[in-house]
Amino acid sequence: MPHIPLSEHLPGITGLLEYRLDTAMPIRELTQLLLRGESTLSQAERELMAALVSSRNCTSFCTAAHTKAANILLGESETARAVQTDIETAPVSDKMKALLQIAALTQQSGSAVTQDAVARARNAGATDLEIHDTVLIAALFCLYNKYVDGLATVTPTDASYYDVLGDRIVHRGYNRPPGGYPPPLSVDTQE
Amino acid sequence: MPHIPLSEHLPGITGLLEYRLDTAMPIRELTQLLLRGESTLSQAERELMAALVSSRNCTSFCTAAHTKAANILLGESETARAVQTDIETAPVSDKMKALLQIAALTQQSGSAVTQDAVARARNAGATDLEIHDTVLIAALFCLYNKYVDGLATVTPTDASYYDVLGDRIVHRGYNRPPGGYPPPLSVDTQE
Repeated sequence: MPHIPLSEHLPGITGLLEYRLDTAMPIRELTQLLLRGESTLSQAERELMAALVSSRNCTSFCTAAHTKAANILLGESETARAVQTDIETAPVSDKMKALLQIAALTQQSGSAVTQDAVARARNAGATDLEIHDTVLIAALFCLYNKYVDGLATVTPTDASYYDVLGDRIVHRGYNRPPGGYPPPLSVDTQE
Repeated sequence: MPHIPLSEHLPGITGLLEYRLDTAMPIRELTQLLLRGESTLSQAERELMAALVSSRNCTSFCTAAHTKAANILLGESETARAVQTDIETAPVSDKMKALLQIAALTQQSGSAVTQDAVARARNAGATDLEIHDTVLIAALFCLYNKYVDGLATVTPTDASYYDVLGDRIVHRGYNRPPGGYPPPLSVDTQE
């Protein structure tokens, strides 16, 4: 049960973003800019980072949502799974491996991001902005994960919930749905 | 030296917020809402939370800046120091002790925030919104700390820098200074 009264039919982050709409707006806007804005990193690559960080923080809701979004964008589910198991053997570019390592280090602690980790990314072709965005995406998902777990939000266990949420994230982005979340993103708790 | 090229005269978060202005705007807006917006928590109480979380993350720049802001708002420097040393013996209310413990648990991990920690805060008079805001402030400062340290920004060691920054935070808030940061917030590196 959540630590504060949230709409029962809105699990995970969705209930929190409806609980305080004024603070939700800049959180949504930052996410939309970082994950859907113009970038030399693909949307799938950025979702892989979000899913990896959420997985390292053991936040099941965010891990499932962003893994599903990455899977839809990639058209397969092997890469996201492999990234979360072992970055170095995952089927991604050397540049992505280096950036995913930076995201994983940022999840541990900002000071864990070493000059060597950054040099590796740069040698693999990463730009300054890609390195910047990787650190900020990782930091943002640590915010989300702490927010979602710190208030003990509900995590649906039915995979079909994340099919719908992942589809929405991919096709509609992170801005607020007009009027809030319609079914089936709002989970029927009356059954 | 920072991992990416930042304005040499803008240390800590200030250079990052000028590096990518579009993502800086929602970060600033969220901070302004949470730390300066209408609340039953005083501005000093919210700055104490920001300073505590930054201290636990060992991010010297943010710790110094928000400790200074709390000190200016309180008119003394003992409380912020005591909170960072031992919450339970610090000269703050029982409600604040309970909320500061929630902030400290959120810094560790969202799932570290127990039902007992929340019940303690509620029994001491904390509202749902205060509990919500405490978790979100702690999560936001984890984002800041990871951003500042993850890109290895410069930390001024001269206390007078934080005197100026703390004064600006207290009297001007978190919105962007028109045209960016004027001296002496921009540190002269030509000396």
